Amino acid sequence: MKKLIHYQLCAASRAVRLALAQWEMECALEEVKPWALPGHVLRLHPGGNLPVLLPDAGEPVCGVYAISEFLHESYNRDASLALMPLFPGTERGRAEVRRVADWFLRKFETEVSQYLLDEKVYKPMSGIRSSPDLPIIRAARENLRYHLSYLSYLAEQRKWLAGDELSFADFAAAGQISVLDYLSEIDWSEFPEAKSWYARIKSRPCFRPLLQDRLPGFNPPAAYANLDF
Amino acid sequence: MKKLIHYQLCAASRAVRLALAQWEMECALEEVKPWALPGHVLRLHPGGNLPVLLPDAGEPVCGVYAISEFLHESYNRDASLALMPLFPGTERGRAEVRRVADWFLRKFETEVSQYLLDEKVYKPMSGIRSSPDLPIIRAARENLRYHLSYLSYLAEQRKWLAGDELSFADFAAAGQISVLDYLSEIDWSEFPEAKSWYARIKSRPCFRPLLQDRLPGFNPPAAYANLDF
Repeated sequence: MKKLIHYQLCAASRAVRLALAQWEMECALEEVKPWALPGHVLRLHPGGNLPVLLPDAGEPVCGVYAISEFLHESYNRDASLALMPLFPGTERGRAEVRRVADWFLRKFETEVSQYLLDEKVYKPMSGIRSSPDLPIIRAARENLRYHLSYLSYLAEQRKWLAGDELSFADFAAAGQISVLDYLSEIDWSEFPEAKSWYARIKSRPCFRPLLQDRLPGFNPPAAYANLDF
Repeated sequence: MKKLIHYQLCAASRAVRLALAQWEMECALEEVKPWALPGHVLRLHPGGNLPVLLPDAGEPVCGVYAISEFLHESYNRDASLALMPLFPGTERGRAEVRRVADWFLRKFETEVSQYLLDEKVYKPMSGIRSSPDLPIIRAARENLRYHLSYLSYLAEQRKWLAGDELSFADFAAAGQISVLDYLSEIDWSEFPEAKSWYARIKSRPCFRPLLQDRLPGFNPPAAYANLDF
């Protein structure tokens, strides 16, 4: 059976979990701490960025970029499987899916989630006793407002974030947004279009496992798992 | 004709220029400053990460991830063109090309080049008068040693960085390494395997335009354009 080495509050891991769940593909999960990766994970993947996919046989596939393209190449090309395409459309359409996925997995990560996770989760979990760095948290929250505006803009213009079809771009964005929602960082009242997109993706069956995630010592707000938030 | 919006010392732009030159594909270049992107570039690509490819017609393709996959999908699938595959091999082989490309375009960028470019180029070019932040430069140089060790390890194990064939992983790494070489940051005597790989890729015809790059006020060391360095 496949195995995914992941972390509950890693957005890239969540994006891949959504894709696998959308495809109803069985996959064991091994959770590791990104701030203290065990040796066996670093030996499989010296780069260390989660997730890592161990396919049914053979070498690991490392990081969300290689994994998403590997799943697309391995399963979407076989039309008899009739799986939702992660990168649908023409060459141009897929370029747009990749642009939006890259926005959320790279730009959003470095400008927002990495800071908030460091300050609110990784530091306390790893036993660093210093209090959260408030100027960093404020800057990340300011950046978050800009990203939520962009998400709202996309959600207003299009049915799904990269066009008419649900795609890996939606899973990438949902991975990030669900992590910040878990951390009570999103005030939905200000971003109705983003909220309407999130409500649609959150109510899909593939989302259910994410809504059951619970980090010891960090309970999400009540609305996190509520489909009518 | 195609156009690439790029910056001379942007590694991702260089990786795409290498691919286009390897394919002998005509492409106009428009250089912009990453620290002061003009409005027309931000309107084409709100994410702002270079490069941006304007294909012969239609919408722009934004960022190195979308561009490299777009080129692969648009031109490598047509076997009659007989172009070097950017992502050669099987699904697993291509996953390895993507892992190594991601290592250099994301991990190397955030741990090494972004800091050195900020301190040595962007700050002075954008008129910020503060002197370079030496602890940041020292940390980036320490990280660079670790990355050059990893590059040496790959170069020792394999013919090219992701396996037996030249691939986009080599272009990604060569983009980064050539930027740091331009900035006199690499002591080749310590990393003979990495040097041997770099000498091989540097002597390819596709590399020539990069060796002619000159930034006003920042001349590269004499060995930068020398094939026998």
